[in-house]
Amino acid sequence: MSAPDLEEPAMLIGHGFDIHRLVEGKELVIGGVNIPYELGADAHSDGDVIYHSVVDAILGALGLPDIGQLFPDNDPDWSGADSSIFMEEAYRRMDERGFRVGNVDVTLILQKPKVMDIKPLMRDNIVRLLRTSLGRVNVKARTHEKVDSVGEGRAMACHVVVLLEKVP
Amino acid sequence: MSAPDLEEPAMLIGHGFDIHRLVEGKELVIGGVNIPYELGADAHSDGDVIYHSVVDAILGALGLPDIGQLFPDNDPDWSGADSSIFMEEAYRRMDERGFRVGNVDVTLILQKPKVMDIKPLMRDNIVRLLRTSLGRVNVKARTHEKVDSVGEGRAMACHVVVLLEKVP
Amino acid sequence: MSAPDLEEPAMLIGHGFDIHRLVEGKELVIGGVNIPYELGADAHSDGDVIYHSVVDAILGALGLPDIGQLFPDNDPDWSGADSSIFMEEAYRRMDERGFRVGNVDVTLILQKPKVMDIKPLMRDNIVRLLRTSLGRVNVKARTHEKVDSVGEGRAMACHVVVLLEKVP
Ligand SMILES: [Zn+2]
Ligand SMILES: [Zn+2]
Ligand SMILES: [Zn+2]
Repeated sequence: MSAPDLEEPAMLIGHGFDIHRLVEGKELVIGGVNIPYELGADAHSDGDVIYHSVVDAILGALGLPDIGQLFPDNDPDWSGADSSIFMEEAYRRMDERGFRVGNVDVTLILQKPKVMDIKPLMRDNIVRLLRTSLGRVNVKARTHEKVDSVGEGRAMACHVVVLLEKVP
Repeated sequence: MSAPDLEEPAMLIGHGFDIHRLVEGKELVIGGVNIPYELGADAHSDGDVIYHSVVDAILGALGLPDIGQLFPDNDPDWSGADSSIFMEEAYRRMDERGFRVGNVDVTLILQKPKVMDIKPLMRDNIVRLLRTSLGRVNVKARTHEKVDSVGEGRAMACHVVVLLEKVP
Repeated sequence: MSAPDLEEPAMLIGHGFDIHRLVEGKELVIGGVNIPYELGADAHSDGDVIYHSVVDAILGALGLPDIGQLFPDNDPDWSGADSSIFMEEAYRRMDERGFRVGNVDVTLILQKPKVMDIKPLMRDNIVRLLRTSLGRVNVKARTHEKVDSVGEGRAMACHVVVLLEKVP
């Protein structure tokens, strides 16, 4: 009944999801970009909903502990932390395991503010932090059509899928 | 620190998400099927939540501008548009880049009406528009268990994952 | 215009989503683990949100009828059913088609109770039921930041992505 000892796959899939409430008195940082807005993420770190989802998708594909385990939100080290630190760590662990990004597709869900003009900056940040190339990273953004917490502008969410490939 | 110039992957992953409010006085079109129902999608185009998610998943995998950028909802050209136009354009761009559908898996989330009998029609439509075969397209449907906007029947949503493969 | 007759892909992607309300007087079973808690899943079967999402992701990748069609919730056979039965059936159908798990990544979304210590048990259960190995299965868990039905503790949800590979 038990499984045979399988070799490591040459490709791995991962999914990441993140959500943060939007509150007053906080900065809004998404995909590494500081966005002028009246609300920001209610989070222990900088609350970067894209970086957190990307990190969780990569760690998930590799079967590693998730972002909440690696960077506990009761750890003062990560208070207000720049989430690029988490991206660097996800990259380091992926590289250590001999994998790299096949491609990553990000779906940011946010009612306001508009981020269309900022998407290329977010994409560049992900490309740089994951040491990959532009054609392998995509960032989409859309609203939640005014319904539920995200649609009412009280939160923002993100889904990420990633395909990792064994470095040849 | 910068990335090496990587070749294009042979497989690409994409994720699409869409949501529309359900309102009176509109038609309900899902997966290209006109469904008799008292509510329809509140949208600039025909509001086809499956087609829009599939299009965004394909564009996302290819790193192309998303559906909101290609077909802006303030463009009168797309007012009431049949979303198969968007599917055709996604196919055209995928084909132009030398990719085809590996497979696509659709998860429609809708409290009412029941669509179980209509799923095969939706699947056929996607197969035809993406010039692929039946075994490479799947449509699932489920409720949102009566909670939140979708569960309360005020909206419908859809998640799509797609794997694209380089045409040999 | 019609599609050529394509061969079966060597890899297939699938996505599964499930949500259940949390109510009094029901047991809480997630990933095959019975968790002591004051609320449980409002469901026809045992309401295992992870198992159901995994099953739907596998069936979805293979283009088979979804969990709601294979195990209708008005069928007395599945009243209070142990959802490992559904996992066994998904495995059987995948095996019959000549595929196995490449890898599977689970994102459980649950405000309470904390499940961090139980994740390894859930993972072991999935590994065993899908006859795969530990490195090919991952379980993440996170909250919904107190917003919407899941964040308010009235429901729990799950997203799963899976990559299936042709058995060599
Ligand atoms: Zn976060
Ligand atoms: Zn839409
Ligand atoms: Zn379920």
